[in-house]
Amino acid sequence: MNRRMVIYILGKMMGVEALLLLLPAGISLIYKEWDGSFFLIPASICLILFALFGRKAPADKVIYGREGMLIVAGAWILWSLFGALPFTMSGTIPSYINAFFETVSGFTTTGSTILVDIESLPKCMAFWRSFTHWIGGMGVLVFVMVLANLDKKSSMHLLRAEVPGPEKDKLVPKMRQTARILYGIYLGLTALEVIFLLIGGMNVFDAVLHSFSTAGTGGFSNYNASIAHFNSSYIEWTITIFMTLFGINFNMYFLLLLRNFKPVWKNEELRAYLGIIVAAVAIISFNIYTIYGQDSLRTAAFQVTSVMTTTGFISADYTTWPMLSQCILLFLMVVGACASSTGGGIKVTRFLVLLKSIRQYCRHLIHPKQVSLIQVSKRTMSSQVLYGVHAYFMSYVAIFIASVILVSVDNMDFASTLGAVLTCMNNVGPGLGVVGPSGNFSSLSVLSKIVLSFDMLAGRLEIFPFLLFFNLNAWRKKF
Amino acid sequence: MNRRMVIYILGKMMGVEALLLLLPAGISLIYKEWDGSFFLIPASICLILFALFGRKAPADKVIYGREGMLIVAGAWILWSLFGALPFTMSGTIPSYINAFFETVSGFTTTGSTILVDIESLPKCMAFWRSFTHWIGGMGVLVFVMVLANLDKKSSMHLLRAEVPGPEKDKLVPKMRQTARILYGIYLGLTALEVIFLLIGGMNVFDAVLHSFSTAGTGGFSNYNASIAHFNSSYIEWTITIFMTLFGINFNMYFLLLLRNFKPVWKNEELRAYLGIIVAAVAIISFNIYTIYGQDSLRTAAFQVTSVMTTTGFISADYTTWPMLSQCILLFLMVVGACASSTGGGIKVTRFLVLLKSIRQYCRHLIHPKQVSLIQVSKRTMSSQVLYGVHAYFMSYVAIFIASVILVSVDNMDFASTLGAVLTCMNNVGPGLGVVGPSGNFSSLSVLSKIVLSFDMLAGRLEIFPFLLFFNLNAWRKKF
Repeated sequence: MNRRMVIYILGKMMGVEALLLLLPAGISLIYKEWDGSFFLIPASICLILFALFGRKAPADKVIYGREGMLIVAGAWILWSLFGALPFTMSGTIPSYINAFFETVSGFTTTGSTILVDIESLPKCMAFWRSFTHWIGGMGVLVFVMVLANLDKKSSMHLLRAEVPGPEKDKLVPKMRQTARILYGIYLGLTALEVIFLLIGGMNVFDAVLHSFSTAGTGGFSNYNASIAHFNSSYIEWTITIFMTLFGINFNMYFLLLLRNFKPVWKNEELRAYLGIIVAAVAIISFNIYTIYGQDSLRTAAFQVTSVMTTTGFISADYTTWPMLSQCILLFLMVVGACASSTGGGIKVTRFLVLLKSIRQYCRHLIHPKQVSLIQVSKRTMSSQVLYGVHAYFMSYVAIFIASVILVSVDNMDFASTLGAVLTCMNNVGPGLGVVGPSGNFSSLSVLSKIVLSFDMLAGRLEIFPFLLFFNLNAWRKKF
Repeated sequence: MNRRMVIYILGKMMGVEALLLLLPAGISLIYKEWDGSFFLIPASICLILFALFGRKAPADKVIYGREGMLIVAGAWILWSLFGALPFTMSGTIPSYINAFFETVSGFTTTGSTILVDIESLPKCMAFWRSFTHWIGGMGVLVFVMVLANLDKKSSMHLLRAEVPGPEKDKLVPKMRQTARILYGIYLGLTALEVIFLLIGGMNVFDAVLHSFSTAGTGGFSNYNASIAHFNSSYIEWTITIFMTLFGINFNMYFLLLLRNFKPVWKNEELRAYLGIIVAAVAIISFNIYTIYGQDSLRTAAFQVTSVMTTTGFISADYTTWPMLSQCILLFLMVVGACASSTGGGIKVTRFLVLLKSIRQYCRHLIHPKQVSLIQVSKRTMSSQVLYGVHAYFMSYVAIFIASVILVSVDNMDFASTLGAVLTCMNNVGPGLGVVGPSGNFSSLSVLSKIVLSFDMLAGRLEIFPFLLFFNLNAWRKKF
């Protein structure tokens, strides 16, 4: 383990956070708010840490996957720890554990909140909340990769830990350049959404914040009623479309830019993703027709894409819907968006691999001597990738069970307990019952908030980097 | 696929069911009940089917695992279809779908009931209900293997599909003899429980019925209040101990009979099983102390073993307990009992393998070049067994999700919907809410009853035999 290099890069990331913290401070000047000054102190601390650890690179620069995972997990934890300080120092969120939960929820693009009255937030704090979504969305690492001068091999390993989904090899060649292009797409789509929302009558501040939250598939809004506040079908449809777009594998946009249409058209994950959305919208809009009448299609489409892309914006309180619709939404939470998108959940590709593994095993039982391989989009999965997907799924369920038992100590009802864990693990935002669309996470115990922060981080970091971070063996100097 | 052999053995099993149906008919003579005559008609039908298909063996007797799986699944389905007839014909359970659900619940040793007033049942019907548990418990096949004259190779493959748990090789040598010994242990333990319950003041009928239900880890009682009816701490402790015993891998008793104590003492699954019980009892008795005071240890011990062994007897309404206790009980439902016991659930061994797979994958991420193997009780798991366990788990979750969505059409509350599916898939019996200890499955729709019958069968038959049964490819004559 190249510990020096891990610390060096984490030091660099502290420098990046210092810069990021200056942005809301700048926003506070525009709106003449005093609270902006509270961003300067954590920014200074981050700057000092950068100066101490992130200036001089160690002689041995070679790092591998395991170092990459530790860096990513460390970055997300440190960013959340420092990013929470402005909330507490300004008194906006007096309890540090609440502020930490809120910041983790931001950087992991979850969107679960402990705030009871979001509208009372100073503008700079509301900006910082949604900005953390935007930063988290594309991954801390893509950021740093562009900034830091790492050699090719290093950044390849870093990205492997970073980009969500089971397979990364398409992204590996020409790492740095690819990262810049992906980042450009992200920026471009965000800007496009801002323009569309401005056309819909939103003011600049709201349009930027909601575009940040959509892009990161986060879900923080600066209104208590979330998107329902605007009461505009144009805005709902616009956000529905952009949520769907941000849930798609970004490599698809990359291929479209290269005018390489065939692999996009043939992509199995994309087809499954869109297919699931269409099927779920059809069933749910039929199921809620008695409640919403002619608005049921729009309402179903918004809530389905919001949950499946793990954004978590709300246009209607789905906990009042029939149980069938609620169960479908819970299922979509678990499946999540496409790999290499900004969304969370298990990811559509993994889900396809899991289903194909079952089919393969049944085939093996019927024809024990035949060898059959698993393919997704005509690419054969190696046994190592397969084992990785299986291990991911098993770890996912294990963390789910352990979290439910720990959160159940709070003695909420069954739906709230399960909903809280599912929504946090899959980085969605709202859950069911107490933590549903009309509720929030403020009444939960400190233990539950810590467990759920853990779940949000584990979900966003695709479990293993996070598990390794707490595994002392991974930190041993000699292997 | 040797279809003729499959049909021949299924024909034989119809003959066995004809004999079994005569027993409750005999019981009705003792109690001078007219309803006993309704067992004779299905018995005659079974006898005719036996005469048509089960008399003359085909020339080609060689069968493999896939045929074994089809036979086991077919047997359980046919037995349930015919075993339900006496309930409907006598008018005890007028709706055939309800009677089918009840009989599947019996043969799969689940113990979920659609009966609102169990105590109004004629004695012969109550006997048949619990008797189906006892037959189901040790597996239809062990029965038939002793009766039918199959060659060694055939019975080996049959047993592979039958005995619950991921590994069977310990059982394979001296198949027929082993089966007889296991069956003897089963009979002996059942008789022992009858004696202990008689000492506790139960009448013979109740003692036999409750011993049947304990032995099969089923859970049907002939009283509406289940075990709480007796209001006796002696009876509760006795049943607690016997439930624990029937949840243990029967190979352990086999080894004890051979005076081979060390492998029993060192057995990892047994240790984990008892460890989980002790831990769960400790936490829950502490958690429910404010409700039950000095009775909390007994109540916790009874309900923990009842749920973990997937028996499903009830001594207290656990749905009124704190959420922590309820979530632990749900978790125990999923884990289930030991492999090669009469219990259901995922099984403790499989659970150990799943946890060790996660640990192995983490180790692989830290040391990518090291090869590490997974061992349970010092025996290395082959990659094929591992893949089987993973596929089992993934299929389990897939069936769980699909079932929840289908049952949610009934629009029950969240806890009831999830509880119904979990309790049926794991062959436990009572669930939560509407289908909890104080409720029953009568109010569910026909769709839900079919889905849950499917779940009970899938759970009991360890998923794959059941999936293959509905896979047309598996029935193709030529491979």
